[in-house]
Formats: sequence, structure tokens, C-alpha cells
Amino acid sequence: MLRFGVLGAGRIGNVHAKALRDSGRAQVAFVADAMPEAAAALAAKVGARTGSVDDVISSREVDAILIATPTDTHADLIEQAAKAGKMILCEKPVSLSVERIEECLKVVEKAGVPLMIGFHRRYDPNYSVLERRLRAGEIGDVEIVTIICRDPTPPPVSYIERSGGLYRDMMIHDFDMARFLLGEDPVTVHALGASLVDPAIGKAGDIDTAAVHMQTASGKMCVITNSRRATYGHDQRIEVHGSKGMLRAGNMHLTTLEKANDGGFTSDLIPFSFIERYEDAYRIEINAFLTAIEKGVAPTASGHDGLMAQKLAEAAAESLKTGQAVAVR
Amino acid sequence: MLRFGVLGAGRIGNVHAKALRDSGRAQVAFVADAMPEAAAALAAKVGARTGSVDDVISSREVDAILIATPTDTHADLIEQAAKAGKMILCEKPVSLSVERIEECLKVVEKAGVPLMIGFHRRYDPNYSVLERRLRAGEIGDVEIVTIICRDPTPPPVSYIERSGGLYRDMMIHDFDMARFLLGEDPVTVHALGASLVDPAIGKAGDIDTAAVHMQTASGKMCVITNSRRATYGHDQRIEVHGSKGMLRAGNMHLTTLEKANDGGFTSDLIPFSFIERYEDAYRIEINAFLTAIEKGVAPTASGHDGLMAQKLAEAAAESLKTGQAVAVR
Amino acid sequence: MLRFGVLGAGRIGNVHAKALRDSGRAQVAFVADAMPEAAAALAAKVGARTGSVDDVISSREVDAILIATPTDTHADLIEQAAKAGKMILCEKPVSLSVERIEECLKVVEKAGVPLMIGFHRRYDPNYSVLERRLRAGEIGDVEIVTIICRDPTPPPVSYIERSGGLYRDMMIHDFDMARFLLGEDPVTVHALGASLVDPAIGKAGDIDTAAVHMQTASGKMCVITNSRRATYGHDQRIEVHGSKGMLRAGNMHLTTLEKANDGGFTSDLIPFSFIERYEDAYRIEINAFLTAIEKGVAPTASGHDGLMAQKLAEAAAESLKTGQAVAVR
Amino acid sequence: MLRFGVLGAGRIGNVHAKALRDSGRAQVAFVADAMPEAAAALAAKVGARTGSVDDVISSREVDAILIATPTDTHADLIEQAAKAGKMILCEKPVSLSVERIEECLKVVEKAGVPLMIGFHRRYDPNYSVLERRLRAGEIGDVEIVTIICRDPTPPPVSYIERSGGLYRDMMIHDFDMARFLLGEDPVTVHALGASLVDPAIGKAGDIDTAAVHMQTASGKMCVITNSRRATYGHDQRIEVHGSKGMLRAGNMHLTTLEKANDGGFTSDLIPFSFIERYEDAYRIEINAFLTAIEKGVAPTASGHDGLMAQKLAEAAAESLKTGQAVAVR
Repeated sequence: MLRFGVLGAGRIGNVHAKALRDSGRAQVAFVADAMPEAAAALAAKVGARTGSVDDVISSREVDAILIATPTDTHADLIEQAAKAGKMILCEKPVSLSVERIEECLKVVEKAGVPLMIGFHRRYDPNYSVLERRLRAGEIGDVEIVTIICRDPTPPPVSYIERSGGLYRDMMIHDFDMARFLLGEDPVTVHALGASLVDPAIGKAGDIDTAAVHMQTASGKMCVITNSRRATYGHDQRIEVHGSKGMLRAGNMHLTTLEKANDGGFTSDLIPFSFIERYEDAYRIEINAFLTAIEKGVAPTASGHDGLMAQKLAEAAAESLKTGQAVAVR
Repeated sequence: MLRFGVLGAGRIGNVHAKALRDSGRAQVAFVADAMPEAAAALAAKVGARTGSVDDVISSREVDAILIATPTDTHADLIEQAAKAGKMILCEKPVSLSVERIEECLKVVEKAGVPLMIGFHRRYDPNYSVLERRLRAGEIGDVEIVTIICRDPTPPPVSYIERSGGLYRDMMIHDFDMARFLLGEDPVTVHALGASLVDPAIGKAGDIDTAAVHMQTASGKMCVITNSRRATYGHDQRIEVHGSKGMLRAGNMHLTTLEKANDGGFTSDLIPFSFIERYEDAYRIEINAFLTAIEKGVAPTASGHDGLMAQKLAEAAAESLKTGQAVAVR
Repeated sequence: MLRFGVLGAGRIGNVHAKALRDSGRAQVAFVADAMPEAAAALAAKVGARTGSVDDVISSREVDAILIATPTDTHADLIEQAAKAGKMILCEKPVSLSVERIEECLKVVEKAGVPLMIGFHRRYDPNYSVLERRLRAGEIGDVEIVTIICRDPTPPPVSYIERSGGLYRDMMIHDFDMARFLLGEDPVTVHALGASLVDPAIGKAGDIDTAAVHMQTASGKMCVITNSRRATYGHDQRIEVHGSKGMLRAGNMHLTTLEKANDGGFTSDLIPFSFIERYEDAYRIEINAFLTAIEKGVAPTASGHDGLMAQKLAEAAAESLKTGQAVAVR
Repeated sequence: MLRFGVLGAGRIGNVHAKALRDSGRAQVAFVADAMPEAAAALAAKVGARTGSVDDVISSREVDAILIATPTDTHADLIEQAAKAGKMILCEKPVSLSVERIEECLKVVEKAGVPLMIGFHRRYDPNYSVLERRLRAGEIGDVEIVTIICRDPTPPPVSYIERSGGLYRDMMIHDFDMARFLLGEDPVTVHALGASLVDPAIGKAGDIDTAAVHMQTASGKMCVITNSRRATYGHDQRIEVHGSKGMLRAGNMHLTTLEKANDGGFTSDLIPFSFIERYEDAYRIEINAFLTAIEKGVAPTASGHDGLMAQKLAEAAAESLKTGQAVAVR
């Protein structure tokens, strides 16, 4: 049974640690967090001990490190864990800097340890089945991928200031999903953006509403739109148009209830919390990591996937600044 | 923390015992089953010990008894547990005989212990919200309740022979749901039935396709149809028509995927397993029992609810036999 | 080009006369109505002359008679037209009395003229395609037919008093649809009914809310519910469950619009007027009559279909009175 | 009653001429077409005479000219009709050249005659109601407009060669719809395109798959995707995301039928013919022209609307060529 050291006991660290515990296939041995009470609380929930980050990474009772700390620590911790010979599951992104990711991945490669980046949406049952059916050829060749992602409300401006901007913080998931579904890397990116939701976001130098489209070398296209506001919940839809038809994954409603009266026919809302929306995805993601380790295959999303998504985000940010299309390096 | 003795380690006993363990609010102390290996296996999963039915019921380390044994043992076990002063959660039905239920409920009443009957559908999130919105008056006065229930495939004929027949075994859930939604007791029942799915079921004296409609004293109606076969999964729909509108709960699909091609627009199947379909309902049901105990209120569905559903099933069975409408006693 | 005499220039007479004109395959030669202005107005619209009922029926410039007069005149006019050798398209029902229909059909049979009864729903594109796919075996053998029919608002009590009651006036369409879809005649009928919408309807001796279920000799079932009130429009749904699957026809919404906000996801209303709802059906029905005449085949719904629907309505009315199931003669 | 001269007796000329006839508010006096038999056939259907283009435009028995001739004749015919003092309804586009449109509109302005451009989608009941509800503020400020338009099959390459390219021929409707819904003019356009459907289209110098996104001065965005192939019909969807919610118009299915079996739940196809899809829109468009004339207000879409849509198409074509974003003049 794989023994994990969990770094970071915040919201997402909790989600992962509990998923490990409930998997019945792994064990959380240690929890570390800059806030000792947070570490202790999570450790108690999952039957683990607490320790410092260094101790946990170097512990001989730990086989794998799960990194759920703030973004700016990811690359350093990955390198430290890799050098200690640990398997690694790291929340996205490795770094907000493409160069830093490239350096980091070299260290991982040299260490020869497995690394999985937490693009949990690949494991959402709707999206993973969609991708499987695409690859099975159900709708022929992929031609246009359309991704809509709208959050119910923007995060605090203080968060946005440290986030790297909408493309790196929010659309990063859609960039990964685009590559996952296109089965090919985009080579051109053009981005639009504006602050329509909250002027404070604009003042902080970021946008809250965005449209990006991209094209691969073979001509396939992907169109992504994002908004930091949706009054009806966490709106997450994917549609793939192919030579033989169309496949799409819609929203999951809170219940199957429908009411009809003189105002029309009204269905239920969709989840407002992404943790609730992706509850299954997080659970399946952890199990996919464990399965990959057991089978001795490389887990996905890989470090390379993390790198490529970041390159697309960077290209979008550059496009927004210049107003022009950007070639992906 | 309430300590449970679980009687019966079959499929549904497993579902309940795990829900107790995962609730974080109760503990399974003992498991009993006629097959010792089944008891041991479940006990291991939930951290319990095994014991004989008599020992478990009389144990001082047990506060509550969960009965998930074969139907013909329910009434006796309820009485035994009641006399031992235990709280009781019993799978439906108390008995296939209305008279036996009435006797049994008298014993429970005399003992003064809480008794909950496992009509789990009341705790399905779709149905419980529907009922709450009905009671809140969203569609005015209830006028017509329509319930459709179709199982993917019939159970083995050997099961059917001991089941008490479709009305008592399968439609019993719909009878309870009818009362739950009508908010009033039906006084007239007329039933149709036929063996259209499998002639062997007809030879065994039962039906596999059925329609029952009922009316309350104030004129409200309920229409129920059942089939033991549905090629597309476990079809479970409820619709309530009221003076100010309509509320309905549809099927839950396996994914939100939709494919469009020259064959049309195709959505995903619905669950084929009722355990999968009602996973949330079973979990919420257990927690509702625990909450009722904590708050000192009577849990529902009550013994009386169990009795009334059985009376409706009996009336339907009599109606099928005579071809005439039957007044509910 | 077939020349029609249209008897009755009311709402439904107008619908049919315009459908004849627009068909490009027939001509309205004469219009007759007890109110001369109504006849003149319709005649002007469709390029016809006016005349008395007797003159129109006996005119040598008329090949076919379309009867859209009040119900109590239908049987007499059919007989008169049949004796004059005219082809006949008569609005449902032939008569509220089964005996009178039987007499009338004998006269038609003796005259050897084609007679079509206006069960327009058979020609609704949704229902006619549903029936064709049923007959093609798409869902195997029919097992349960479920029909829901709810009118937005009740007609005036003065109308209800002369209507023959809900079963003969409103559910008659569903009885015909039941036979159309079952492909077999029901042999047993049990009916429930109540006045829940408007007490004045109850005082007039009628009901406004009803449930009827029926069974054929081979065991197939049909469940029908009716209400004279639906706050969200003219609710018309049909569902057929068969051995290999399910086919259903849902409501047609006014537009495809959907709005999402913090109140949920709201689709548009459905038509409130049956003329709007069945606009296509009326047009196709007229053309089906013309096609049948051109091909020399018997038009449907036939006089026999009209008779059988009336027998089911009569059985339902008797069942409501006695509370017991009624065998259809 | 307005008397029309219809120029062009092809498919769309027929649609318009019949809509005029059926309106009951106008009369087709003359039909002209380069192919005399086509003109004669249409004239016979609508009760008109035939004549040469020059004769029709100059006829004193003609009040209004409907232009449904090949695109390259539109601007000349508009000028000729304007100089003759006729009201004008012209199929889109005025010209494939922005300059030519500007010249032409000056002539019309000088003549002071009403001019309507045939952007029929504005009159589709789904889209016109959507726009009305937007303007009424139902979802607050418009933020993102998403338009999906996919034709079932590409037109012949011979047509494509003369079409001005996908942006001017097909996406032109979406450009008009974008302006209609944004309520503001886009100032930046970036376009992607590829020939993924048929290599022959690529050889002819055109594309068959395209994505365009645009932004207005205030930051609102519009995302359009087009494909010349959709195996499931004429896919036409619009979604508007606003500060207070979302409004969308989906596809219209051929029937409301749904089948469920072990392959899933399958709804019907959508129309394959745009004439069938937009039957109502064409009829309402003609009546909107007549109403505007009667009320003495300017009909829409106006000549200016036609010009602006063409400017967006031109910007998209330039963007595709240069790979860069283009500022709309």
C-alpha cells in the first residue's frame, strides 16, 4: 500500500487526502502545512502524522508526495521530491513560468520518478468518456472543439493579483482539455479579454471575461470562452464537432426536477462549487495515479502536459497584450 | 455514537452497514447472518464483530438493530428487538400480511421504541425535494400523481415465487411514494396486470406488467405503471399535476453526454442497478434515522406507513383477482 | 379537383375550409351555416358560394361534404349526405349515442360512400410518425401506452352541459389514440373522475379531472389522464413502452429559447390553443382524405373507429357511475 | 395593396413571391427572370404577369421591387429601382465589395426610397424573441455571444468559386446576427479557417470550417464557428451570456419523438434544408417589410446593416490571409 506525504492542508489538500484514505489502496502517512493546526486537523481526519515539509519529503516511510501547496512553491517541491526519489502528484500548475517548468521537468526526468499534474477534469466521468468515444472514432475526425467555462463568482482581488491572470489561473484547465480532445497541439493562439464583471479586477491588471481560439497544424480549431460570473452556477460545457457527427458534455443539474407553470418549464440549478461539481473527478484522479503506479505506466496528465498548457496560457496572455495572434513555441 | 447490530449481510445489508460506517455518526458493533462467511466478510469491512441473531439483539453493546434479513423474518425480529428495547430500522416490508404487520406494530408501540421502515425513495434527493416543494405549495393543490417504475430485467422466478407478487414486492415502493406525495390516503384501488415479459412469471402465478390507479376521499388521483423489463435501464419517474402547475422528477443519466449524427441526438443510458440509482438515497436514509434519534422525533417512513403501503398492495392484488375496484380498509 | 360543400362555418369549419383551399387539390364550392353572415364570411375567404344545407348536400356541383356543425346534427347530416351519394368528412363524434352511430354507419355502408371521422391527432406529425415506427417494430411488442392530455382552461359550463361529459367530449381523442397505438381493442375499462378544477362543473354533473385505464384481450394496457386545467399550456404527451424499448412524443414549445439565471433553467411555454397546437395536423388530415379518395382506399379514422372510441367513452362513463370496471361490448 | 415586381424566380424568389401572395397584404404584379420558363412558372403560381427586368422596374403598376437575382446583379438593380422611385427588398448581400455597397447606398439615400436587406434570421421567431428579451434587460448587460452555424453539406464547388468565400457567403448571416444581438459594432476581428470537409473547396481557394471572434469597443465579445458539414442537419444555435444570466436558442427538431433502448435515449434529427428551417422566418420577414411600409418607418435589416455585415466579412477574410487581427474600418 503506497504511503503518501501530503504537502498543503488547504481545501484541495483535504479533497485529495480524503480521496487517498477512501481509496482503500493508499495511506496518508504524513501531512505538512505552514499552518500547524491545518496540518493537524487534516492528519487527524486521515489517520496520519504531521511533520515539516523537509521531513516528509525525506521520510523513509513515504513513497509518494502529493503537492497541494501555493503555486509558487510547486516547482521547488517537485524538484526536492524528485531528488528524494519520490513519486509525485502535483496540483496544477508546475509554475506560472514556462522556463521554470522546463527546468523542473529536467530534474524530474533525471530522477526518473513518475510525475502527474492535477488536471482533474480529464477524470470527470463525462469528459473521460467523451474523450474515449472520440478516440474510438465515433464522430470521425475532430474538426472544432468548443469549450465554455464560467465560474459563478470571481475570486477575491487579492487572489487574482497573485494568480498569474485568468489565462494561467482559470483557462489553464481549458487549455489542457483542448489538447486532450484535439489530440494535437495548437500552433496559433489569438485571445480577447475584458473586465466586464468587476472593475477592481481590471484595476488589478487582469480580465474576467475572455475568448481564445486556437488552431493546430492540421487545421483543427478550438474555441474557448470564460467568464468569472454565471448567475446560475458553475457552467462547464464541452462540444466536439467531427466529420461524422458531434459529441457534447453538458452541465450536471442539482436534481432532475422540472416545474411547469405560467412562467415556463424550469429545471434545477447546477452546482455553484467546483469541489461539488468535480467530486467524482478528484476521486477518480487519485485512483488513476495509483493504478498507473501499480501498472508501471506513466500517469497523465504528464509534466509535458502541464508544460504545454502553460505555453498556451502564456501565448494567450501575450496575444491579449499585443492584440495579435501568437505562434506557440 | 449509536451502536448498531446489523442483521443480514446480503446486498442491502452491505449497503446499510457501509452507510453507517461512513456516516461518522454511528458504529456497527455486530453483524449476524445465517451464512457465517457473509457475516464475517461484512464485519471485517465495517470493523464489527459477528454474533448470532439472538446475541446481537440482546447485547448490551447494541443500541439499535438494522434488519436486512429475508422478508419472512422481519416481523419476528422487530418484535424481538422491540422487546429488548432497541431502536429499529427495518427493510420494507414488515410482512406480506397486513394482519401480521398490525400485530407487530402493537408490540412496537407497547415497547415504545422508535421504528423506521426502509422506504429509501423518500430520501432520494430528487423525490425529497419534490415533496418539500409540493408541501410548500409551489403547484397549489395536488390533483394527479403519475408514477412510472420499470426495472431493467425481472428477478429469477425462484425469487418471484416467494415475493408476494409484483404489487407487494415492486409496486410497494410506488404505493408508499403515492401516499408521500398525495398527502392523503387512497380509498379506492383498481388494478390491471398481465405477464407480458416472461411466461414463466405467469406460470408462477404472478404478473410482470401492471397498472394501478387509486383515488383519495377528496378526489385526488394516482396512476402507477410497472414493468419488470426496460431495455434502457432502471426507469423511475414521478410527475405531480397541481392546480397551479406541474412538478416532475426525471431519470438520472449515467453521463451528460449527447451524440448527434445521422441517427439523431442520443443521450446516455440510465443506471441498470437500483443500488447505483439509489446510492445517495440509502446514505441519506441512514443519516435521517440517526438525526431523528438525535432529535428525539419519530423517524419516517413509520410503521404506520409500512402498514398502509401493504394495505394498498393487498387491495391491488384483490382487485387483480376480482377484476373490480377495491375499497381500502 | 374535388368540389366540397362545407357545412358549418364556425372555428373548426374555418380551419378545414382554408386547409381545403390551400391544398391546391380541392375546391370549396359551397358553405352553409345557420348564421348566414358566418357562411358568407367563410365563403368569401375560400372563393365559394353560400347555400342552405339541403341545397348544398343535393347540389350536383358538390362531390364531398365536410361536416363541421354542432355534434347533435352529425348523424342526420351524414345519413343525408350518404343518401345523396356524397363522400363525407365529419368532425368527431358521429353522435354521443353508440346506438345512433351504429344506425348511421349502416346507412353509410348501404350507400357505399367513403366516410372519414375527424380524429385529427392521428395526423399530427409527432403521433403519426410514432405510430409508423411502432408498427415497424422499433420497440417490439406494445405493452403499456400512457397518454396525458391537459387543457389549459375548462370550456364554459354552458358548453359542458351539452358536451356529453369529459369522457365523450375530451377523452374521446385519447380513446381513439389508444386504439391507434395499441393496435388492438380494449376489452376492460375502469374510470376515475372528480371535479377538482371548478365546482360549477361538478354541479353541472360532469368532472374535470379524470384517470382511465384499459386492457386488451392480450393483456396490453393503456393509462389515460385528463385535466381541464394546465397553467403552462395545452399539455399533450404520449408514451409507449414495448418489449424492446420506449417511444414517446413530447410537447411542442413555442420557441426553443432557454434562460438560465439564479432561478434555474427555464424553457418556453407550450401552445395554449389547440388550433395552434394542431395546425399541421388539421392540414395533413384534409390532405389524407384527398389522397385516400384519389387512391380509392378507405380514409381513416373510419366510421368504425368513431364507433369504437364512443364505446370506450360510454364504458368509462358507466364505470365512473358504478365505480366498477366495465367490459366493452 | 402594395404591388411587387419580383426579380429572380429561383428558389428564394419563389419563397418570397409565395409569401407575398399568402400575406393577403400585397400582390405580385410581375415576375422577371433570365430564364423565361422560370418566370412564367412562378408568375402562374402567384397570379402575376412576366416582363423584362427593365420593364418591371419602370412599370407604373409596380410599387416595390423584390430582388432575388444572382448576387453580382444586386447593386445595379437596387440603383435602378431606387432611381425609378421604387421601394426595395433585396436578398443579402448588396455586393461582395464594401466599396460598391457604399456607392449603392448613396444612390438609395439620394432617391429617398425604403431599402430592406434580406437577413431573414432576424425574423426567426426564436431569434427575434431572444433579441427582444435581451433588449428588455432579462439577462442584464450582454457579455459574450456564441453563434454556431453548421450546414448539412457543402454547396457545389462551382457555387463556392463565385460565392466570395465562406465568410461572405455563409458567415455573413452570423455577422449580422452578432451585431443584432451585441447591440454594438465589433471593432476587432480575428479569423481562423481551414478546408477540412472537402479538399476541392481548399483547391478552389476557400475554406469550409471556420472560427471568428470579435470584440466591441466596450469589451463585449462574439464567437462564431461555421462548418459546411453536419451529419445531423442544419445546426443553428445562439447563446448570449450576460451579467444577470444566459439566454439561448437551440435547434428545432423535426418531431418531438424520443426513443429509449439499449443504445440510449434518441431524439429526432433537425431540418436538413434551410428553407424548411427558416420557413416561418421568411414569411414573417415579408410581413415585416409590409408593416414598415404601412407605418412609414425604415425597414430592417437596413442598407447600413448590410454594409456593416460585409465589412466584418471582409475583415475576417483579411485576417485569414494575414493571420493577424483586423480593425474594422
